[in-house]
Amino acid sequence: MEKNIIGIDIGGTKMLLTCVQGEAIVGDVISRKTPDTSEEIMDLIFRGIEELRNKYPVKAIGMASAGTVNLENSKVTGSTGNLPDGYEDIEFKKVIEAKFNIPVLVENDANAAAFAEFKTGNAKGHPNTITLTLGTGIGGGIIIEGKLLKGSTGAGAEVGHMPLTWAKKRKCSCGNWDCWESYASGSGYAITAREMAQEVPSESLQKILDGKSISELSTYDIIRELKNGDAFSIKVHDQWEEFLSMGIASLANIFEPKSIILSGGMAKFVNYKVLHSKVFDRTVISKPKIMPAKFDNFAGILGATYLAKNKFF
Amino acid sequence: MEKNIIGIDIGGTKMLLTCVQGEAIVGDVISRKTPDTSEEIMDLIFRGIEELRNKYPVKAIGMASAGTVNLENSKVTGSTGNLPDGYEDIEFKKVIEAKFNIPVLVENDANAAAFAEFKTGNAKGHPNTITLTLGTGIGGGIIIEGKLLKGSTGAGAEVGHMPLTWAKKRKCSCGNWDCWESYASGSGYAITAREMAQEVPSESLQKILDGKSISELSTYDIIRELKNGDAFSIKVHDQWEEFLSMGIASLANIFEPKSIILSGGMAKFVNYKVLHSKVFDRTVISKPKIMPAKFDNFAGILGATYLAKNKFF
Repeated sequence: MEKNIIGIDIGGTKMLLTCVQGEAIVGDVISRKTPDTSEEIMDLIFRGIEELRNKYPVKAIGMASAGTVNLENSKVTGSTGNLPDGYEDIEFKKVIEAKFNIPVLVENDANAAAFAEFKTGNAKGHPNTITLTLGTGIGGGIIIEGKLLKGSTGAGAEVGHMPLTWAKKRKCSCGNWDCWESYASGSGYAITAREMAQEVPSESLQKILDGKSISELSTYDIIRELKNGDAFSIKVHDQWEEFLSMGIASLANIFEPKSIILSGGMAKFVNYKVLHSKVFDRTVISKPKIMPAKFDNFAGILGATYLAKNKFF
Repeated sequence: MEKNIIGIDIGGTKMLLTCVQGEAIVGDVISRKTPDTSEEIMDLIFRGIEELRNKYPVKAIGMASAGTVNLENSKVTGSTGNLPDGYEDIEFKKVIEAKFNIPVLVENDANAAAFAEFKTGNAKGHPNTITLTLGTGIGGGIIIEGKLLKGSTGAGAEVGHMPLTWAKKRKCSCGNWDCWESYASGSGYAITAREMAQEVPSESLQKILDGKSISELSTYDIIRELKNGDAFSIKVHDQWEEFLSMGIASLANIFEPKSIILSGGMAKFVNYKVLHSKVFDRTVISKPKIMPAKFDNFAGILGATYLAKNKFF
């Protein structure tokens, strides 16, 4: 009989709690907008655990969170972006264990998602695999011989910040120039579209702009017209896949993974045939299979519970 | 009492054999130009082992080789570049063990060098560390939690082939465009110098060219005039360190290593203060210490014997 493990996922905009048994979500999913203070987040976590513990004989808690997590898997240590002040000071493992006497493991959300894909998702059977989250930035979780790559303090796998050119063309949200994510993320996509729109005759953009100015052009405008066969949109999209392929090729040449899994909002816009071709052109060793993720919203929850199970049982 | 282990290093131009006891080379070093045929290489290996075995009670053999090595550490499977035809067909482990009844481990030379730096070199005490070999190309050996990163088939850590720009400016020796090593290796250095020389008034190049044409300009010409404070040479060198810093920053952001060790012919030209600054600018997590290697010619030999010791005793 599989043990019941509470899964928690804390993101910048949303937090989720539920109960997982083996590979299955068995509990109702508690979904809330992430509160503005650390105290309220902690309060929601406590109440969620209480609620789930009253329904299921819970044996462990796995928590996925935005931000870097320390090597002890006990707390978040940085890069918390949209999370409130004080979040980095919370000793999650300590306070939750003290209150409920249930063992707790904390892991970075991208790492947890990668572990879920490896254990029961589209990378199942691939001890060397990478899961990339393509959203407003690019996150990564890297599995080597079945184990997460953590780095010296737990902050590793910051793949979004590989430099993509020395040209100093785009500032990244990290403050540096020309990181991969400033080109290959969803935000990067829109910037590319606007840059390219400056260089074509405005007549050719009428349909795509539909009354908007170039500075208002969004990723979704391009995706919409891409489906209608618009030539400009096809060019923008191809350029994005070129940028995307560069970082993926770096990872393929470094890790020689069996698979690279794409998740996050932008993953569904990828033409996998085109991306394979672009990546394979740049890969000097065995080529990875590039695939969409199996899990979407619940990847972090599932991965965190699998990691907790591995650690505690 | 430390066991005697034969260390062998097969490179494209030179091969070395000696006997290692613990961390020390105790045997004479047999050094030969690498022969033109696989048969002659095998013959030299056999005769070297015979000679060393007659002097020392040898318990194992560790062999470092150019090229990718399989996961079983038994043979070279590809990327042999300057090595003769048929080299990839040699079952080193099988034939040497059959002849001498001594256990054999084969490892890629860059991996072996990284392991040597980790065990007894400048990365000692750093379970997460990377050693880069800056020569005509760029090789890498990556240690994660004390273990070499191998990839799915043993061909991983091809760090030289991270794409550095999408601009299609330079063909790499691998056939692709704009790999890191085509900018940051010794060969890349000379190409940068020649490109930059085209863009400055020829008067300013008189001293550096010393009668040569721009197409003959070499890395050593720049290094020579760099020492004399030549403005053009300073610019070229700075550009090279910029290129070098980009790939190192990618590795720092991905692996969060404690150290990055530079070996190979170009390592001695690095201004470590400048390089640290450039890499730190691009690193979003904890910063690695970048250092020259402790071992030079014997890194491969030492690393291969350490790996053999780990595996067999």
